[in-house]
Amino acid sequence: MKCVSCKETYDAKDAGTCRECYEEASETEEELKREIEELKAKVNFLRFWAPLDPRPHDYNRSTTPDVVLVAVDADSGNPVANSAPVPANKAVLASRSPVFRAMLETEMEESLSGTIKLSDVSYDALRAFVNYLYTAEAYLDDDMACNLLILADKYEVKHLKTYCEKFLISKLIWETSLISYSFAHQHNASNLLDAALSLILDNMDKLSKREEYLELVEKDPRLIVEIYEAYLSKQVNTAAAATTTTSSSHDDKVNIASATGSRVPTFLV
Amino acid sequence: MKCVSCKETYDAKDAGTCRECYEEASETEEELKREIEELKAKVNFLRFWAPLDPRPHDYNRSTTPDVVLVAVDADSGNPVANSAPVPANKAVLASRSPVFRAMLETEMEESLSGTIKLSDVSYDALRAFVNYLYTAEAYLDDDMACNLLILADKYEVKHLKTYCEKFLISKLIWETSLISYSFAHQHNASNLLDAALSLILDNMDKLSKREEYLELVEKDPRLIVEIYEAYLSKQVNTAAAATTTTSSSHDDKVNIASATGSRVPTFLV
Repeated sequence: MKCVSCKETYDAKDAGTCRECYEEASETEEELKREIEELKAKVNFLRFWAPLDPRPHDYNRSTTPDVVLVAVDADSGNPVANSAPVPANKAVLASRSPVFRAMLETEMEESLSGTIKLSDVSYDALRAFVNYLYTAEAYLDDDMACNLLILADKYEVKHLKTYCEKFLISKLIWETSLISYSFAHQHNASNLLDAALSLILDNMDKLSKREEYLELVEKDPRLIVEIYEAYLSKQVNTAAAATTTTSSSHDDKVNIASATGSRVPTFLV
Repeated sequence: MKCVSCKETYDAKDAGTCRECYEEASETEEELKREIEELKAKVNFLRFWAPLDPRPHDYNRSTTPDVVLVAVDADSGNPVANSAPVPANKAVLASRSPVFRAMLETEMEESLSGTIKLSDVSYDALRAFVNYLYTAEAYLDDDMACNLLILADKYEVKHLKTYCEKFLISKLIWETSLISYSFAHQHNASNLLDAALSLILDNMDKLSKREEYLELVEKDPRLIVEIYEAYLSKQVNTAAAATTTTSSSHDDKVNIASATGSRVPTFLV
């Protein structure tokens, strides 16, 4: 037969779908593509242009700001070096973050002065943060993803948090998984936490040799305890699954160590 | 063979794709669905809640208004019966419409008073219009689609105009196509105009008998002229296509009337 899609001939054993299903699938694909185009147009319509947005527009859609955000030093309260106030609109900030909303729509200092001070943030991260609140777009590298995740957690901007987590998960490697795990814990990033933990659990035999491990045992031993608890729980589940599989042969006594093989670290055997 | 999708057996003549192409298509479909989910989350993040939005929210995301829109009688300038001021945010209006932007971000009356008066609009249409500027959503019937298209044209909100045009095009029937054509012309709705014109051109033999035709000849004869011009141009194109098809037999002299058959109205034969 000849494939209607790639036009190459194939044997019966390599057959895929009948023609009707192929045509249906093609229609579905077209419909999905149309839906994507419509959603993209909607995103473009709903997007704001931040007052500092440098891109050229079809007409100048950036709005007159009525509030500024300033990156300040946590101790002195003075603006950080090489920074400038970042202009924004109260309506946008309040719509995107319940924390900004509380600041701006009550009689708090920020609302009255029209200035919001943020500490522990660089000027670049602050600009990228404000821009994301307007456009739902950010250009991430490892540093920026971490900085924006911290801001997203603090100001409760869920959409940005998910975006940063996805980026950081895509970059996860075993060598840095403990640092990511600790970072995720500190900033309530549950998706990143799960992904980092899963990578750590797959490499338990190497865990205790890592420098970051020793540091974390000193600094925050509860986090290390949680790793071991998760590991034990995983072993019990693996054993239970093995029991279910082999229960028909009445071999219930599964040895946890043998079920998980050579990956069991010394302390458990 | 057995179709891997519908699981039914089929003959070689009904064969569709090979298995490899089927698997690729399935992956593509999954990717498109993921992209749709991401875009929907983005739309949800970028959407504002209008001050009058009645829906319950995860937290109250509606913003404190700083401007009101009022539906007024064109002659008296007084608010229309059973209406109330519709609260909104300058930043949202200015971001969505260059017309509102010009009103609100210069020293015009509307900017100073915080009140925008709109004439020739019902209270319901005004509320739906403002709600669309916040959410990119509207519940349309024929009347509302026309009312919102008029506002979208006046205030240059392209996304809403396209949305209303699509709805009206989906409802087009021959019996009302002349009215739609005239309406589209009046409010610069080029997609609706093209669709209505195409339907009219397919029914030219019945055109001059319609009451709306006679009315339009009186009221705006240029519009009727444009229909006949389009009809003639279509005939010429059809004839040219027929010429190309038959040119190998050197039969260049194609009779326009015979090429288009019985649909040619009396005035042209």
